[in-house]
Amino acid sequence: MNLVDAVLAGDRLALSRLLTRVENQHPEGIEALSQLFPHTGRAHLIGVTGAPGTGKSSLVNRLALHYRREVQPAPRVAIIAVDPTSPFSGGAVLGDRVRMRDLSGDSGIFIRSMASRGSLGGLAQTTAALAQVFDAAGYEIIFIETVGAGQNEVDIARLAHTTLVVEAPGLGDDIQAIKAGILEIADILVINKADRPGVESTEKALRNMLELSHPLRHVFRHHGKIEVVEAAAAAPQYNSWIPPIHRTVATEGKGIAELVESIARHRQHLIESGDWEARERARLQAELEDLLRETLLHQFRSRIAPQIYEQVLQQVLARELSPWDAVHLLVDRRQG
Amino acid sequence: MNLVDAVLAGDRLALSRLLTRVENQHPEGIEALSQLFPHTGRAHLIGVTGAPGTGKSSLVNRLALHYRREVQPAPRVAIIAVDPTSPFSGGAVLGDRVRMRDLSGDSGIFIRSMASRGSLGGLAQTTAALAQVFDAAGYEIIFIETVGAGQNEVDIARLAHTTLVVEAPGLGDDIQAIKAGILEIADILVINKADRPGVESTEKALRNMLELSHPLRHVFRHHGKIEVVEAAAAAPQYNSWIPPIHRTVATEGKGIAELVESIARHRQHLIESGDWEARERARLQAELEDLLRETLLHQFRSRIAPQIYEQVLQQVLARELSPWDAVHLLVDRRQG
Repeated sequence: MNLVDAVLAGDRLALSRLLTRVENQHPEGIEALSQLFPHTGRAHLIGVTGAPGTGKSSLVNRLALHYRREVQPAPRVAIIAVDPTSPFSGGAVLGDRVRMRDLSGDSGIFIRSMASRGSLGGLAQTTAALAQVFDAAGYEIIFIETVGAGQNEVDIARLAHTTLVVEAPGLGDDIQAIKAGILEIADILVINKADRPGVESTEKALRNMLELSHPLRHVFRHHGKIEVVEAAAAAPQYNSWIPPIHRTVATEGKGIAELVESIARHRQHLIESGDWEARERARLQAELEDLLRETLLHQFRSRIAPQIYEQVLQQVLARELSPWDAVHLLVDRRQG
Repeated sequence: MNLVDAVLAGDRLALSRLLTRVENQHPEGIEALSQLFPHTGRAHLIGVTGAPGTGKSSLVNRLALHYRREVQPAPRVAIIAVDPTSPFSGGAVLGDRVRMRDLSGDSGIFIRSMASRGSLGGLAQTTAALAQVFDAAGYEIIFIETVGAGQNEVDIARLAHTTLVVEAPGLGDDIQAIKAGILEIADILVINKADRPGVESTEKALRNMLELSHPLRHVFRHHGKIEVVEAAAAAPQYNSWIPPIHRTVATEGKGIAELVESIARHRQHLIESGDWEARERARLQAELEDLLRETLLHQFRSRIAPQIYEQVLQQVLARELSPWDAVHLLVDRRQG
């Protein structure tokens, strides 16, 4: 049996091996992605992001356990932990060890850490490819866990159907600016470690920022009072979604069931509003264009003599030719 | 006189107008970039990044003043403040107001805020274009100031010749993981607000991280003791650079002169080691390839019937065709 068939048959070792080949962009991995593609499109991709210290690994851990133990029929759950900083922080390794204790022995859960700092530019693309493998292998819930608030997280959030942004009380006001940026990608806000002091002011800050950022604020403002969380229930009639705020204590399992319900509601909202299909379309179109760009460049480079390309590059380096003029020159030369 | 000539002649209003057109990707802006390109390549691009709360705007402010008042002959100084979160944080606006007070009235300083959250994907490209305009306009020192530690900062740092990473005491250990990631792009480390308690432990943490991350650690380890900062003086003989750590109190101007000297030393190091030329080459080559990719895709899309493209996309959406097979189909069709 080849690797693809073994993965489709549920072989974990084959799955693990294929994930490695895909992550390393091994030709066999690319070929396998193409073969697996018809089997994709069923998974719910859930992005989970937040600063270090918010306890999002524990949260993902608990959510995975909940899906396996409390939801009927229990979906298979994959966790992709993306941590570009892990070569130094060691966070991914420790996180995995903690997870092992609770989640090991359950063949319906698969955890994969990615720490490809080297290929940062393509992190979102690689994550998308790994998610496709899990999707084809029958994992219906796929968590994509990322650290921080940079372009990576935004790009990776674009892959997910539902994005959870995790905060925690007492992480300081200095990161407010970063929080504001990340709020834009949040479908659901989670205040984890909600038994800590300061949870009220964290929630208040999040509500204020939601009010600032959410386009529906006028609708609810004319009722005299802004109630963003309650507004989420009324939102479907406007064909929109206002991010609810959840409080959790992941280490004790508090608030997990409510959060899982909220995730399911968001999925339902996406399907009913047509956003699910729209997001799929946008995602696949972007993937197609990325591949087209790379293929066309590759083809172009293979057809032009290296010394001509180098000569043009030298003229650019000498400031004799601007990059724009250089491109026109190269493209026209091919056609002449 | 056209806009390009006016900019080359030192007209500030024309410069301001051209920067806007370039930022908005106005065709006239693109055309102007091409015309200005032969005049570029003289500026020293200095990236300054760090978390909110480290006081990096004040630091950049002070550095700019120092260049204008203490360096002979005084270079013209441009500041590009990149803050994708500013629509919410208001940080950029406040920052500009503070700066105005000290820097206004000096025609040798030009400050530009960018808050193009909408086109995040192209933030690095837009910043590069603005820097080219300043470079052509005769600004010899160009600061590029960014917030945070995401992909944006890494991409923008790749533009700069010298990258300063700014820390401050007492911002908490929770952001250590982010710091570790950002350290990789640092040429110079700055502990600003160094009059605050905790400066010793911040410096110790940075030294430890430097030790972990710097490839030269073995060289100095066999002497029995690791002295990373002192090692910077010895580094040139290994044709390498170990990031020095500077303490500053920007609000009082403390440590600024030493930091400016360090920046000049780094420039000298880049030129002597050949890294300056290597970075320029890598940067222009990447720019050329980005433009080639876009041009080739644009050309390809304009030659293929929209209904055929749409039809293939529909087959991908229906999972009948993988994106890889779709690209081959499209590219082969064109040639058939």
